[in-house]
Amino acid sequence: MEWISNSRILIVGLGLIGGSYAKALKRLGYHITAIEKRQSAIDYALENHIINDGYTTVDPEIVGSADAVIFGLYPKVFKDWIAQYQDYLKPGAMLTDVTGVKSCIVYDIQKMLRDDVEFIASHPMAGREVYGVENANDRIFRDANFIIVPTDKNTPEGIRWVGGLARIIGFSRISVLSPEEHDEMIGYLSQLTHCIAVSLMTCSDNEHLVEYTGDSFRDLTRIANINDLMWSELFMLNRDSLLKYMDIFLGEFAALRDMIRDGRVEELREKMRLSTKRRAYFNK
Amino acid sequence: MEWISNSRILIVGLGLIGGSYAKALKRLGYHITAIEKRQSAIDYALENHIINDGYTTVDPEIVGSADAVIFGLYPKVFKDWIAQYQDYLKPGAMLTDVTGVKSCIVYDIQKMLRDDVEFIASHPMAGREVYGVENANDRIFRDANFIIVPTDKNTPEGIRWVGGLARIIGFSRISVLSPEEHDEMIGYLSQLTHCIAVSLMTCSDNEHLVEYTGDSFRDLTRIANINDLMWSELFMLNRDSLLKYMDIFLGEFAALRDMIRDGRVEELREKMRLSTKRRAYFNK
Repeated sequence: MEWISNSRILIVGLGLIGGSYAKALKRLGYHITAIEKRQSAIDYALENHIINDGYTTVDPEIVGSADAVIFGLYPKVFKDWIAQYQDYLKPGAMLTDVTGVKSCIVYDIQKMLRDDVEFIASHPMAGREVYGVENANDRIFRDANFIIVPTDKNTPEGIRWVGGLARIIGFSRISVLSPEEHDEMIGYLSQLTHCIAVSLMTCSDNEHLVEYTGDSFRDLTRIANINDLMWSELFMLNRDSLLKYMDIFLGEFAALRDMIRDGRVEELREKMRLSTKRRAYFNK
Repeated sequence: MEWISNSRILIVGLGLIGGSYAKALKRLGYHITAIEKRQSAIDYALENHIINDGYTTVDPEIVGSADAVIFGLYPKVFKDWIAQYQDYLKPGAMLTDVTGVKSCIVYDIQKMLRDDVEFIASHPMAGREVYGVENANDRIFRDANFIIVPTDKNTPEGIRWVGGLARIIGFSRISVLSPEEHDEMIGYLSQLTHCIAVSLMTCSDNEHLVEYTGDSFRDLTRIANINDLMWSELFMLNRDSLLKYMDIFLGEFAALRDMIRDGRVEELREKMRLSTKRRAYFNK
């Protein structure tokens, strides 16, 4: 087994992803401490042996004993946490996160951060439409993508460390993108996708649709079950990339509508063949 | 086990759904004959014991020996078949179909059909993004919806017969809609959904996206792998309902875009809460 040198890991924010990291890492033998404001989440994680110990407040000794810290917080809360508590961090500690947007936080955090610790941003593409440590499941990382998002401030050691973390947890593919590339890509693949699911779901208030539907509508609206607090924050923090892709999609969709309206069947079929061809890249 | 009285069943058109019906019904002990123009499909079905016998041409004796006929044809081909071959049908035969649009075919077929046979339309909501009898799988009917689409010309016996067919095959929920209700519903749940998937897929020609994506984009574009011949025909035959829902969706999506552009976070969150509430109806 590959190994990362830091043996005491602190997870700050024990949601779905933080909790799933905890589960995976504890299974591998690491000592896992959690800081999470929700006592019931700590209780659940202790009862289910997902963590070794957990706290609802930020104690200097607890933070100071961690070799590595994984932040599973909302973007703004994450920045505030660093501003307020970074003095507690152990010299040499490695930090990473699971945040869905990068440009708006990575530079700010690296700028304010002490010189003797390193924050290397990363994004595990393993989200689910369920939330909380109560749904934690370390199988979500299998077959999932992991994106390392370094800047000029990161060291080769930092990049290797977070790549090692991803490998031991079981991610199947690890890529490196700049914060800007990451946010552009996420605007399309994740945020636009959620906007579409929400809009599709709100088209009708018919409560009986479940009696008639097939799997395609169910699949397209699975993520219409959405955490409004988290996603609205992510959308606003990546507004430019998201709006760019929303407008591209609007153009594609309106063009398709016009083809149908005008009975331009050959163009319609050409578009379908293009989508079929592009979808083929995604067949696993 | 419930039973339908017709023991010799003819399936015309051995695609994914026709083939899956054949598989399910043969397993239940019915004698299954197929007519399908593609010899390789007949060969596959015979080799895999999906049918008892199969033919690539329409023989009067073969058609005349069937107590029930299930049509797995594209809409226009289906109408042509009835016009050309209905004289071969056995008196008293029961007919149904699997067609994805109804108003444009059901009335025409019932109008031209002989008085001594009955066509009761139905729609098994069990399609997949794969095609052909080679993908036939009778498990696709489990947990699936089945819609009976009767008109004034249908008898209570006809409606009971097709409901019985759906039950023995294993559909989990059977509903009744008029042709107009069916087409309106399908314009939203199925056709709009496919238009969205195609448009989302054609937004970018980046071949590397698979390295970064999570499950949500994969789920929303699964059906972007689309049979362009079949779906363009279905779209054109249900153009009014589809265009109606495309415009409703465009309105919802554009409203969401404007909320994001203007930073109207409370409205955005309200919309997400609405979509979450409505999606809850679909949790199985």
